[in-house]
Amino acid sequence: MTEITKQGLIYTGKAKAMYETNDPEVLWVEYLDQATALNGKRKVAIAQKGLLNNRIASLIFQDLAKHGIANHFITQQSAYVQLVRRVTMIPLETVVRNAASGSFERKFGVDHLRLFKEPVMEFFYKSDQLDDPFINDSQIVALNVASADTLAEMRRQAQLVNHRLQEIFGAMQVQLVDFKIEFGVTTDGKILLADEISPDSCRLVDQTTHESLDKDVFRKSSGDLTQVYTEVLKRLAAVEEEKPCI
Amino acid sequence: MTEITKQGLIYTGKAKAMYETNDPEVLWVEYLDQATALNGKRKVAIAQKGLLNNRIASLIFQDLAKHGIANHFITQQSAYVQLVRRVTMIPLETVVRNAASGSFERKFGVDHLRLFKEPVMEFFYKSDQLDDPFINDSQIVALNVASADTLAEMRRQAQLVNHRLQEIFGAMQVQLVDFKIEFGVTTDGKILLADEISPDSCRLVDQTTHESLDKDVFRKSSGDLTQVYTEVLKRLAAVEEEKPCI
Ligand SMILES: Nc1ncnc2c1ncn2[C@@H]1O[C@H](COP(=O)(O)OP(=O)(O)OP(=O)(O)O)[C@@H](O)[C@H]1O
Ligand SMILES: Nc1ncnc2c1ncn2[C@@H]1O[C@H](COP(=O)(O)OP(=O)(O)OP(=O)(O)O)[C@@H](O)[C@H]1O
Ligand SMILES: [Mg+2]
Ligand SMILES: [Mg+2]
Repeated sequence: MTEITKQGLIYTGKAKAMYETNDPEVLWVEYLDQATALNGKRKVAIAQKGLLNNRIASLIFQDLAKHGIANHFITQQSAYVQLVRRVTMIPLETVVRNAASGSFERKFGVDHLRLFKEPVMEFFYKSDQLDDPFINDSQIVALNVASADTLAEMRRQAQLVNHRLQEIFGAMQVQLVDFKIEFGVTTDGKILLADEISPDSCRLVDQTTHESLDKDVFRKSSGDLTQVYTEVLKRLAAVEEEKPCI
Repeated sequence: MTEITKQGLIYTGKAKAMYETNDPEVLWVEYLDQATALNGKRKVAIAQKGLLNNRIASLIFQDLAKHGIANHFITQQSAYVQLVRRVTMIPLETVVRNAASGSFERKFGVDHLRLFKEPVMEFFYKSDQLDDPFINDSQIVALNVASADTLAEMRRQAQLVNHRLQEIFGAMQVQLVDFKIEFGVTTDGKILLADEISPDSCRLVDQTTHESLDKDVFRKSSGDLTQVYTEVLKRLAAVEEEKPCI
């Protein structure tokens, strides 16, 4: 493999900037030192957030791959950069819930952190214009967003991801309440886990203190995000038996 | 069968009053001369509406039964009254859409009356307190509202209902845009189509004039509901080869 070099910017999102590289199949992902809430309406610079999330996501993606769950991660290039396999994103957020929280709790009036017997799975249609509406399978198919087969495959992989993430976070004394993942399609038509898995996209609760260890700290301005993410990385690195590179 | 007599009131809804009878398996349903909108916040007396809907629903339920789709209808007892088989209602509204309209159109920004290749199916959780939220299968199962098997059976029956309703309304020169049905469980555990099927619960459009022939006339105050429902009954009775009993 020739050395990968950064080329033109494709997209600057709320948490990451995506660049092309000299390899059309490879993207250069820079994790940003910024946090947003309310769908981007509130945006704040947060020291080291990009570095922390890059490292956390890298460790998680590596772990998942080791456990048979293929994903877009290629390598952690530097403190803020990941190289990933470029895919055509499916414009759906897949949410997996092990316990009630957030929008589920509000919508259905159930007790906070009530455990589900089976994980709840939800799809949200990624559309800034439509405000990311909750969507069901038959709507997804009718709108040509994804086929029923694609949804089945996304569900299958999401279950596997949930299973392994619960093992990882369990070993960190952290409860995985829920998380959001995204999938893309590779040039050879495979559904591949992409985007990121980090405290930005997971709802995490310390099993002993019941404190939030995720972006809720920022959403609710209830603590120092850098400190909290540093703690998550510390525990994750210990579990993954590597030293954090910071 | 001994003669059925009306007994205590069980429930007065927005469109019907339900009474017990001398037979614990039979309910006495009175269709009311009233229309509501905005989840009951707006309520108006409408001459003959109960009589029209009772007759329309009776004809439709009879037709469905004749076409192999069992339902709660026993007999039309009088102008305003139906006898139906009592069931334990499943607190879900099942919505079937053949074309985009209403909440679907607004939510996903698609063209009014855009046809779907396959009917779209949605469930809404019947809860006044929660404001009847849109709900997906895994949420329904997690909240113990219905099992996956029950949902599959509801979907199967809803497809059959849609198929036959499209034939009926097609013969009336009416497009069936979408409709809402409800199911209950019989004492011997069968999932049975219940509640009503009428212009209150269907979105109907005249194939020639493209005028609404349903409750949208009332919701949008765009016409005379009694006149419109009378027209629907006239066409339906012609198709069902019976004379309306008014
Ligand atoms: N492997 C990949 N190939 C192509 N695009 C990807 C890949 N992984 C993630 N993306 C996309 O790159 C963007 C990452 O940026 P970021 O997460 O900051 O976006 P965002 O502000 O959350 O916006 P969005 O609403 O699109 O997620 C997202 O649009 C994501 O879908
Ligand atoms: N066969 C049946 N056995 C028992 N209950 C029934 C049956 N068919 C319909 N129902 C219930 O009877 C009530 C009918 O009244 P109506 O349709 O006016 O109610 P509503 O105001 O729409 O309120 P709801 O929100 O409960 O539907 C509904 O609650 C419906 O679920
Ligand atoms: Mg994103
Ligand atoms: Mg009703």
